[in-house]
Amino acid sequence: MENRLIDDRHIDFLLYEVVDAESLCELSYFSDHGRDTFSLYLQQARKLAREVLYPTYRTLDLEPPELKDGAVRVHPELEKILPRMVDLGVVSATRPYEVGGQQLPFLIFGMANAYLMAANLAAYGYLGLTTGAARLIESFGSEDLKSQYMKRMYSGEWTGTMALTEPQAGSSLADVATRAVLTDEGHYLLSGTKIFLSGGDHGITDNIVHMALARIEGAPAGIKGVSLFVVPKKRFDGEDLVDNDCVVSGLFHKIGWRGLPSISLTFGDRGDCRGYLVGEAHQGIRYMFQMMNEARLMVGLNGASTASAGYLEALRYAQDRPQGRRLKGREPGAPQVPIIEHADVRRMLLRQKAIVEGGFALLAKASALQDRGEHADDERERERASLLLDLLTPIAKSFPAEWGFEANTLSVQVHGGYGYTSEYLPEAWWRDQKLNSIHEGTTGIHGLDLLGRKVMMKGGQPLMLLGEAIAESVAAAHEAGVEGAWCEALQAAVATVGELTAHLGGLGMAGDPEGMLLHSDDYLSLLSIVVVAWQWVDMAAAAKRGLARGEDTERAFYEGKLYAAQYWIATELPKTTVLAELCRTGEDSYVRIDALSF
Amino acid sequence: MENRLIDDRHIDFLLYEVVDAESLCELSYFSDHGRDTFSLYLQQARKLAREVLYPTYRTLDLEPPELKDGAVRVHPELEKILPRMVDLGVVSATRPYEVGGQQLPFLIFGMANAYLMAANLAAYGYLGLTTGAARLIESFGSEDLKSQYMKRMYSGEWTGTMALTEPQAGSSLADVATRAVLTDEGHYLLSGTKIFLSGGDHGITDNIVHMALARIEGAPAGIKGVSLFVVPKKRFDGEDLVDNDCVVSGLFHKIGWRGLPSISLTFGDRGDCRGYLVGEAHQGIRYMFQMMNEARLMVGLNGASTASAGYLEALRYAQDRPQGRRLKGREPGAPQVPIIEHADVRRMLLRQKAIVEGGFALLAKASALQDRGEHADDERERERASLLLDLLTPIAKSFPAEWGFEANTLSVQVHGGYGYTSEYLPEAWWRDQKLNSIHEGTTGIHGLDLLGRKVMMKGGQPLMLLGEAIAESVAAAHEAGVEGAWCEALQAAVATVGELTAHLGGLGMAGDPEGMLLHSDDYLSLLSIVVVAWQWVDMAAAAKRGLARGEDTERAFYEGKLYAAQYWIATELPKTTVLAELCRTGEDSYVRIDALSF
Repeated sequence: MENRLIDDRHIDFLLYEVVDAESLCELSYFSDHGRDTFSLYLQQARKLAREVLYPTYRTLDLEPPELKDGAVRVHPELEKILPRMVDLGVVSATRPYEVGGQQLPFLIFGMANAYLMAANLAAYGYLGLTTGAARLIESFGSEDLKSQYMKRMYSGEWTGTMALTEPQAGSSLADVATRAVLTDEGHYLLSGTKIFLSGGDHGITDNIVHMALARIEGAPAGIKGVSLFVVPKKRFDGEDLVDNDCVVSGLFHKIGWRGLPSISLTFGDRGDCRGYLVGEAHQGIRYMFQMMNEARLMVGLNGASTASAGYLEALRYAQDRPQGRRLKGREPGAPQVPIIEHADVRRMLLRQKAIVEGGFALLAKASALQDRGEHADDERERERASLLLDLLTPIAKSFPAEWGFEANTLSVQVHGGYGYTSEYLPEAWWRDQKLNSIHEGTTGIHGLDLLGRKVMMKGGQPLMLLGEAIAESVAAAHEAGVEGAWCEALQAAVATVGELTAHLGGLGMAGDPEGMLLHSDDYLSLLSIVVVAWQWVDMAAAAKRGLARGEDTERAFYEGKLYAAQYWIATELPKTTVLAELCRTGEDSYVRIDALSF
Repeated sequence: MENRLIDDRHIDFLLYEVVDAESLCELSYFSDHGRDTFSLYLQQARKLAREVLYPTYRTLDLEPPELKDGAVRVHPELEKILPRMVDLGVVSATRPYEVGGQQLPFLIFGMANAYLMAANLAAYGYLGLTTGAARLIESFGSEDLKSQYMKRMYSGEWTGTMALTEPQAGSSLADVATRAVLTDEGHYLLSGTKIFLSGGDHGITDNIVHMALARIEGAPAGIKGVSLFVVPKKRFDGEDLVDNDCVVSGLFHKIGWRGLPSISLTFGDRGDCRGYLVGEAHQGIRYMFQMMNEARLMVGLNGASTASAGYLEALRYAQDRPQGRRLKGREPGAPQVPIIEHADVRRMLLRQKAIVEGGFALLAKASALQDRGEHADDERERERASLLLDLLTPIAKSFPAEWGFEANTLSVQVHGGYGYTSEYLPEAWWRDQKLNSIHEGTTGIHGLDLLGRKVMMKGGQPLMLLGEAIAESVAAAHEAGVEGAWCEALQAAVATVGELTAHLGGLGMAGDPEGMLLHSDDYLSLLSIVVVAWQWVDMAAAAKRGLARGEDTERAFYEGKLYAAQYWIATELPKTTVLAELCRTGEDSYVRIDALSF
């Protein structure tokens, strides 16, 4: 049996039985769409993932890019794969018709693209980043920048990168030091070094467009003095493309995503690197942040997809691999049983299932909010959706990264000694997954973002919206016949979050932000567990409704949801009590310890 | 600043302020030893680790063994390193004088060898396995086997391996199928295939001695029909060594420990592979098990050492790396602070410290029990020490593996994007660590061993001994002035363990072993947290005594122990309530779910 990477039935269940994807078609932006176009897109993505991307996954992992004579050489298979993804609309499917897009809901786009990520995360990366880069130009760039750069990126002719990080700054974008000096001709001359540019050089397309943060001469210190520039590898000189003085100054040896190069790039070594300002000066960070929800949902999708591939591989292995016997009635000489018969293996599998499917459910919900936040015809609906999405984003990004990593670790463990070898695939997904807790904001930063910014926004509105949404789900779950105790446990946890947040908010208002944020990581874990419990209650309700329809072929599928829900409520939700206690008491060991005492 | 791999002061603290290593010298076996010989051995190990092993660690990782023309070629550096370790007595230091050993306590041996593991786990592996193999011959082999094989192994002339696992059997040793046929000449002819032989072929020494499990023709089915054999790569033909028909049939590509080959080995392809029975027929599993406590403590030491190397690297990085600013008073333009100033980084560091140092403390305690269990002059003391050690072994093996892996993951995370590259070391230790939850019994198997066998042994005596030992520690902690609440929390957790175990034992006695063992992994986690909390209470008491002596230069060191103890008691110990509840209620999602519902 082939690894299907992601369970199609689960994705369809989420789209049509849990989040009601079709209701998005009532919005005018999506009005040309319907379940038929959704299905077609999904089907094409599944096919491409399984038939084209997955077969080259290990190849790209084993033969990573090399830096030779100042240029990065990537695996030649990518030249065949990338255009296939472009054809599927990976770069532009959600974009408006006028820029060449298909106005597809992000929800459908995300769930379909998840297959491509599960199949070959590194190959996907080239185009995922291109979308992000092109969108910045679409939203904030001049018409010139759009016609010269954005169009070629959306069409897949060129790729794009994010050139944010610098060696001395890392996560601290306030410390970006790349300089930009305005010339008489209207462009800027850039100088500085960027690191961790994924897909920063490759040779597959004729050009690469870097979206770079830099500081214009005389700009204020800190994040309010950072501007956004288009800095192409090759710039236009009339109709011709000429070298733009971007020098590959190093290639990082990543431990995963090995088909996608991560480089350091030096701008302006010979004083001739031109950058074109996007939007207004000093607004770079604000522009970046406006794109961030979507970028972070994409990282969440990476995480869920990578965990899914590992889970389904472990499931397949556990079904096929005979070893040992049941505890009761083990006769020497009796045939061995498949390891899925052993309780501890089942525990590891159900844990993976609960993480993977719970993660996808959260991402589906967040993606639908992204669609409504951007395209609802009613302004108030857009606002509400955006606020709730703001709150859910740090969780939708970091839950699949952190718990997904645990799932991938369990996938290795289920494979035993074989899992520790590169003759089997789980270790590769396990390495890939680890990046997701680091890039696009570390988990620590998302904890600070959630507790220091998101839950406190607009007088606590986002958390109220979350409470309302969960209350609606609980009411529906009751009606569908979901276990009352599960609903009560979820609501009790929500009440705990509310009280705790009020307490911590009080510390912040009393001028003690460090006290408020001391356990921001625990707070992020706590709210993640609760939010995923909400998904499981929702899925349990949909499963109950499915069972009530009484189709026998679907019974096993729906019952699986109920057991996974039971698992999550019983195993994870009680941990919130411990986490809440740590946050509330402000357990202070790690702030009080002297640096010399470590 | 160089990475010191393990904190010397912490190891000395454990030896002389926590477990009283010198008291072992009162036993006649160790009577030639004293703190001076202990210190000398430790000093030599530290020097060898830092000056010889560590500098070649990354080299071995990057240039793994290759299989060419039926032989494994390993890195040539190993030819220089291995003899240096042999000189230190890595193979034989704990063994009796009459077999060439130094009668060094395992406690000192283990803590000293931990440095070698932290410095270069793969290089250490060759000799660690040799010790285990030679000990089997020492304990159960004939005089001939001792003089022909054991002597040459203890002297470092030849290495040894464990040839247990087979492709169809994995962890299920009952299913060993390698055949052994007795010949008229008294030896056996072996045929079959073994996998995952670490150091199974290398070319550094003239010969390799495999300790192989096989089934003698006509033996009973199951584990009671498995015998232990010496199967050398080359056997004696008079004075000469001739090929013994062991063929390297494959090389696994491990994801860590990459300097040490893991191979598959086929015995008797041309019908001429001779094996020499060790001890009696059909006793192979029993013999192996008698060596297992020590082998498992060695794996625990691997785990703690690997976590330690990662922790100290992260600590160093956090002290040196400036990035961002404190939450309060962050002025743009103010200099960045070292990341150790950020609360969430400190959390990740203190968590690593608590795991690493708690792990070493547990291993020190278990090692001292190993010494007393084997060498106490009083039989009753030997028995008590062995019983408590039996109970602690699954924890001493799996705690450093599982929590240590979490620590290594945090070490990667502290390094941010750099941690995800092989330009930095944390990722290598992170890969190395993952094996420790798999080899020498998976964590799942240790859960079954702990709950199904160890705590239930001899009417529950081991758990009573643990309760007594913890009560003594608590009394001493009270006297030293340790926080009363910590002691109470520990004792409450011990009471929970007692009640829970009685409940689960009741299920077992009522004929429901599957119900009893359903949450054996949770039970293992629970008892691990409690046992490590015990270590932290012990260390807190020693720290209080140290502070009372009032040496100012030691203040920061001792205070660090108190904060780590506070952290463990506040953060980990409350989790035991949740785990106990899962075990007690027998939460049944993963057994009830149908295999088709995954």
